[in-house]
Amino acid sequence: MPALQKLLSVPVRSDDAVEEQARRRLDALTKPPGSLGRLEELLVRLCATQGRCPPSLRDPVIFTLAGDHGVVSQGVSAYPQVVTAQMVENFLNGGAAVNVLARLAGARVVVADLGVAAPLPAHPALRRHPVGAGTQDMTLGSAMTSAQARQAVEAGIALVDEERGQGIDLVATGEMGIGNTTAASALVAALTGAAPERVTGPGTGVDGDGRRRKVEAVRRALEVNRPDAANPLETLAKLGGFEIAGLVGVILAGAVYRLPVVLDGFIAGAAALVAARLKPDIRGALIAAHRSSEPGHSIVLDTLGLEPYLDLQMRLGEGTGAALCIGLARAASAVFTEMATFKSAGVSDRAHPLGSP
Amino acid sequence: MPALQKLLSVPVRSDDAVEEQARRRLDALTKPPGSLGRLEELLVRLCATQGRCPPSLRDPVIFTLAGDHGVVSQGVSAYPQVVTAQMVENFLNGGAAVNVLARLAGARVVVADLGVAAPLPAHPALRRHPVGAGTQDMTLGSAMTSAQARQAVEAGIALVDEERGQGIDLVATGEMGIGNTTAASALVAALTGAAPERVTGPGTGVDGDGRRRKVEAVRRALEVNRPDAANPLETLAKLGGFEIAGLVGVILAGAVYRLPVVLDGFIAGAAALVAARLKPDIRGALIAAHRSSEPGHSIVLDTLGLEPYLDLQMRLGEGTGAALCIGLARAASAVFTEMATFKSAGVSDRAHPLGSP
Repeated sequence: MPALQKLLSVPVRSDDAVEEQARRRLDALTKPPGSLGRLEELLVRLCATQGRCPPSLRDPVIFTLAGDHGVVSQGVSAYPQVVTAQMVENFLNGGAAVNVLARLAGARVVVADLGVAAPLPAHPALRRHPVGAGTQDMTLGSAMTSAQARQAVEAGIALVDEERGQGIDLVATGEMGIGNTTAASALVAALTGAAPERVTGPGTGVDGDGRRRKVEAVRRALEVNRPDAANPLETLAKLGGFEIAGLVGVILAGAVYRLPVVLDGFIAGAAALVAARLKPDIRGALIAAHRSSEPGHSIVLDTLGLEPYLDLQMRLGEGTGAALCIGLARAASAVFTEMATFKSAGVSDRAHPLGSP
Repeated sequence: MPALQKLLSVPVRSDDAVEEQARRRLDALTKPPGSLGRLEELLVRLCATQGRCPPSLRDPVIFTLAGDHGVVSQGVSAYPQVVTAQMVENFLNGGAAVNVLARLAGARVVVADLGVAAPLPAHPALRRHPVGAGTQDMTLGSAMTSAQARQAVEAGIALVDEERGQGIDLVATGEMGIGNTTAASALVAALTGAAPERVTGPGTGVDGDGRRRKVEAVRRALEVNRPDAANPLETLAKLGGFEIAGLVGVILAGAVYRLPVVLDGFIAGAAALVAARLKPDIRGALIAAHRSSEPGHSIVLDTLGLEPYLDLQMRLGEGTGAALCIGLARAASAVFTEMATFKSAGVSDRAHPLGSP
């Protein structure tokens, strides 16, 4: 049975007993109950998904998947297509923002080629799963064949599988692909029914004309491909990209393997939308790292019912928002394991006769 | 000349040339300009305040000042007053949330007694600047005398002065004081004109009755003391607390010494409001770490014109939000110093003929 079909048949588990254990411990620590707000909620989510209390954060991995997009010929990006390959090299050399932020957060970055158009350097750390030399232009027809989309999803699953032997305990998503905010916009429009002009933003920074071209490209892609939202894999093939499809696999595998899945921004959100349509029970494993400044991202978050932890008006992708959120997860975990309890510190719990219970 | 008067006479400087240098460098890094959003803005603020590019973050210090409040006799807190002293001991033993989060952020915590009611343990790390054994009940009269308020402000200045020899390069505020959200609420109501029921929240977690007692205490404190908003020191004396006054000194000293001042939550915000009324040109040095879930904090942030970096529904105080924000400052600084440039990485800058400029 292919990996994807197998994953879809396995129920995603969450552990209520561990969740309860985490909550009880949080309330025993020397702070008013709930006073660390969403940091406490994040901790509980990590525990429940992993089925471990305290959670394990020894080896969080950011999967930064790269792919190119035929739609760039419509003038939808401020950068030339070759930047995708150049940035992959930058990732491999440790010079990109995601490398810096991952180092700071104690996370590894796994860089994978899912279908970059330009030749990539030979590098031992590069995971090679190229499905093609970039997708086709979705304004003229399907971006991928169904077989290509499946192949890319399965490559994403394989990437997570490869890391399971290394002790991976948290999955985070990252991506690079000139033109991929346009693909993600089309995907989100198709799956949520939102209008192209609502989901389409400046991406890496196109100006008014560039944005109009993006909206027009999304509109034409929807018209030409007539995607059926009830068939998420077909919609993914028609409008997505190799790296987006790969992320669908990463997200599904993470959730099924009980690894918390930290979603980066808009592109990751589009992939998560596809993944959640394929397998709705992954929802509990998903953690929205941040709210991207791409307007379509808020639509994705609302649709998935996810509240992001950070809102720093970032729109870089790569996994940069996810890396910052891993830092918050470390903070939550440190509080959980290192703080004194009311009992151990000899601090009076809520006992003032005039105070509330 | 007393330290406060001297500080008030020194203009706060910011460095436009360094700010410009920071912006130029940010735009040379391998990312679309501005795509790291508020992380970039934070970096620029650090550089401009310190007059250094890159900024220095070798020795950030969180000043966690403790004091007690006579108003607790009105039943405004869920915890007994003795918890202030017990938590000071917890800080000194490294078991509180701020200790854990500061360790993670690579920051030191300086714990100071500005006027705790119960006896404190002898501990070499405790800075002793007690102004009294807790303030008077502000619902019956002035919480402090003018001399006490000044003494506490000067103690805050002295705390920062002591650290200057150690190489301190960033000031963050923290506090502990059972009852101090009630004092801060009164202060914010007096200085902004906001109604007591709008600025008063659950604090450490009082229920409906407790909150009604808090609102009533704030209302009576305003009635009894008739503070004059045009006289911020007098308003501070009437409604504040020793640790809040101490923070006013910490904030003023930080800004004048060109140290970025990372404000924690609501109590810190009330202190910053007083400080900014005394010396409006400190504004550029202030960094709002997070938005507390205390309703009055948003009023403070609006009044000061500050946009917080985090919104995690925290309401713990101690400096916990500030510690998380120091983590973000480290992320911004790492990006700035460790990322490759377009030139060094051989990545094409925005050159697509169809793209925007």
